Amino acid sequence: MTKDKEKKQVITPKSKDYSKWYLDIIDVAELADNSPVRGCMVIKPNGYAIWENIQKILDAMFKSRGVKNAYFPLFIPKNFFEKEAEHVEGFAKECAVVTHHRLKLNDKKKLIPDGLIDEPFIVRPTSETIIYTMYAKWIQSFRDLPVLINQWANVVRWELRTRPFLRTTEFLWQEGHTAHATKQEADDMTLDMLEVYREFAEDYLAIPVIKGIKSDNEKFAGAVYTACIEAMMQDGKSLQAATSHMLGQNFSKPFNVKFTDQNENEQYAWQTSWGMSTRIIGAIIMVHSDDKGLVLPPKIAPMPIVIVPIWNKNKEKADIIQKVKNIANNITEKTGYSVYIDERDERPGFKFYDWERKGVPLRIEIGQRDIANKKAILVRRDSGEKIEVPLINIDKKIKELLNIIQSDLYNKALKFRNGSTFEVDSYDDMKNIFSKKENGFVYSFWCGDSNCENKIKEETTATIRCIPFSDSKKDGKCIICGKKSSKRAIFGKSY
Amino acid sequence: MTKDKEKKQVITPKSKDYSKWYLDIIDVAELADNSPVRGCMVIKPNGYAIWENIQKILDAMFKSRGVKNAYFPLFIPKNFFEKEAEHVEGFAKECAVVTHHRLKLNDKKKLIPDGLIDEPFIVRPTSETIIYTMYAKWIQSFRDLPVLINQWANVVRWELRTRPFLRTTEFLWQEGHTAHATKQEADDMTLDMLEVYREFAEDYLAIPVIKGIKSDNEKFAGAVYTACIEAMMQDGKSLQAATSHMLGQNFSKPFNVKFTDQNENEQYAWQTSWGMSTRIIGAIIMVHSDDKGLVLPPKIAPMPIVIVPIWNKNKEKADIIQKVKNIANNITEKTGYSVYIDERDERPGFKFYDWERKGVPLRIEIGQRDIANKKAILVRRDSGEKIEVPLINIDKKIKELLNIIQSDLYNKALKFRNGSTFEVDSYDDMKNIFSKKENGFVYSFWCGDSNCENKIKEETTATIRCIPFSDSKKDGKCIICGKKSSKRAIFGKSY
Repeated sequence: MTKDKEKKQVITPKSKDYSKWYLDIIDVAELADNSPVRGCMVIKPNGYAIWENIQKILDAMFKSRGVKNAYFPLFIPKNFFEKEAEHVEGFAKECAVVTHHRLKLNDKKKLIPDGLIDEPFIVRPTSETIIYTMYAKWIQSFRDLPVLINQWANVVRWELRTRPFLRTTEFLWQEGHTAHATKQEADDMTLDMLEVYREFAEDYLAIPVIKGIKSDNEKFAGAVYTACIEAMMQDGKSLQAATSHMLGQNFSKPFNVKFTDQNENEQYAWQTSWGMSTRIIGAIIMVHSDDKGLVLPPKIAPMPIVIVPIWNKNKEKADIIQKVKNIANNITEKTGYSVYIDERDERPGFKFYDWERKGVPLRIEIGQRDIANKKAILVRRDSGEKIEVPLINIDKKIKELLNIIQSDLYNKALKFRNGSTFEVDSYDDMKNIFSKKENGFVYSFWCGDSNCENKIKEETTATIRCIPFSDSKKDGKCIICGKKSSKRAIFGKSY
Repeated sequence: MTKDKEKKQVITPKSKDYSKWYLDIIDVAELADNSPVRGCMVIKPNGYAIWENIQKILDAMFKSRGVKNAYFPLFIPKNFFEKEAEHVEGFAKECAVVTHHRLKLNDKKKLIPDGLIDEPFIVRPTSETIIYTMYAKWIQSFRDLPVLINQWANVVRWELRTRPFLRTTEFLWQEGHTAHATKQEADDMTLDMLEVYREFAEDYLAIPVIKGIKSDNEKFAGAVYTACIEAMMQDGKSLQAATSHMLGQNFSKPFNVKFTDQNENEQYAWQTSWGMSTRIIGAIIMVHSDDKGLVLPPKIAPMPIVIVPIWNKNKEKADIIQKVKNIANNITEKTGYSVYIDERDERPGFKFYDWERKGVPLRIEIGQRDIANKKAILVRRDSGEKIEVPLINIDKKIKELLNIIQSDLYNKALKFRNGSTFEVDSYDDMKNIFSKKENGFVYSFWCGDSNCENKIKEETTATIRCIPFSDSKKDGKCIICGKKSSKRAIFGKSY
């Protein structure tokens, strides 16, 4: 706290430098910090509390669908990677390799690696290979299926350019891994989990997302197809918020995940995997925050309500704190929301400013006179609106306001996305849009050929974010080659 | 399930081969499995659900004391280890070293490590060094103190001999790390967290523990002193269930964790760290289970109650399941306990046997006749006792029984420990006890000299488990050297 005060950090305006603004928000809201470990961040308590809420909600959604949690090894034997060629392509270029199992002091009193391991280990970038090795052991009969397992874990991908939450060498995520008796079941699972992610993103994070399928260029190495939800950030760029992969039998064959069916025939299982990571915290920050600081949707905010009691003289403090505690307890009892009371010996103005930067959705200001008049001031973080309410009604009003803030944030984000979404029928129009500083999502017909996709990527840096499920248009011409096309893709620049 | 049936696994009697019994319990209860990664286990859903309950309860206990969760990097730069000599001694001999950041295919289509890292990383065996590097950055003034942070994480120690839960190369744990302005505060924190662990072990896990201090030989490298709770397993061996370390200024000095006090003087912070790991699941298994399978205390059991509905003809199934569902819903509503209904098409006898092995504390058997007579049979897993109860009273009886099971398990374990605890005043008596197959805890006077301690260790393999807080005897003579001693230590063989 003192550090903040001393530094008096200024938030760079979003319009001036979007990247700097993002880093400033993380800094002033104390969400994360750089670590001395290349590409790895420290998730500070304020940031981790958001992740804990994400875990709690998503975990319950998974469990309601019969998914159970388990834990698999951090290390993957190198030769597991050799079994699945696509996988190698995807991950071998950026992974942490464990080659030794001890350190020893040399003559100069420095520690050097010692004890060479015969078969090096890879620190998991994702766990398909190790998990499916176990599934091969566990699954024998159709009676053992489906297997629905999720893992909350850390994973490592050796990224060259990193940014807190969005792209770090180590990150936290959940990875679901299922095995089924039929292709149909696996297809259904893939889309069912995508719907879980959509519901979570839209209903809890207030982030509107588009469901669709990745192009072959952009899909997960090893998947038959990758379904995803894509969200638009306030700079018009796209962020892949979660993915759900239909793996078909691509892993069950090399890893021998087989079962005996009802007719005593041996078959390979059909599999899916799906994940959401701490990256989503980057999306929450970028979709909702403003130049004053972090903005959090109430349903995911670790601290939804803060009360700032106001006293003029020090001797009034104990009395007002006591009264405010009674009010807070009453609110918690009636609404279920926890309420934080800011008892610090600081000016109210400083506290307002502090909680604004930290993104607490609703602030309650209460002074001696307010208590005498049996009222309080509620201040919305998202809109800044101040609302005077009688204390007798405060719980109902709080419930109502938090619901309104939640839906207003969603609607605001949706409106922004709609305003930055374009339909084009010519490549010139597309190039024109992507040449602007703030661009967005561009819907256009695409033939399905990766040559056309690559040309666009090379010339505009935009890629296919997804082929949306909900697109209504039927036929058109690929904006590059002019071939007839029955599907439109969403192009965008991405995180 | 089918696999189990086909294999018809037999549980080795505890008295015949305790180690084999332990592994058999893990196998039949489906708690964990060996992985293809040397020394690493897979925690299966049944085992992980126990860990999830542990996390939920402990996490709430930590938070009620103002501790917040955060997340720090998995990798620790090698040179951090060089700063704290004691630490090096403790961990450098058994750690995973990351030396490369990619793999490339060689001529033989094999992947080989590539991209040498300048400064190798250690996969964290514990996080003092990386966390305190951050604390040095975050802490400036006495106003920033205390810092109370916990991390739920995986850690790696390259163990040569491994056993599921008890000793594995990778394991899961929580590690709390605090920084304080005074020695007194750090001392208090160390013992306060030890009390949290004692309460958790005794009240939730039904494991009686002894609080005490480790000898210098056995303490955490780098701690001023290590406080611990020790539990006795059913073979008389001791298991260290949790530790809480007073670090003094041993880390704050090399890592520069300094603050300016009220008088504007610069001081080094006083620190503590404390942890409990998935090892505790090994203790739960070993303290309570019997030759029929796993026994779990109700407060930690992922599935506290199972109903086995009994039907004679297949056409009766739907009807009885429906009635049992109503009973289950009523139980959940009135007691808060979730109830699992076993609808499998298997003989009731198979199901009883299955749930016994898996350690469900309370089984309810209900057939058509029971429903007609408005009663059910409750069967306690711990004692095998069968109790007929009227359905009208079933919720009250269940609550009562689960409480009784919980305290009976604790009392049984306490009785066992008392029966295997000895006070000796001569080394011959001690040797006599430790020469027996089942031994236990031996209280005896010890001068405090590690030479005497080492002699006992060499000759009996027993070590000092702790110097207990609660010991009442005042003075005596060291059983080895005969020097006057004011403290008794507990000696025991350990896991």
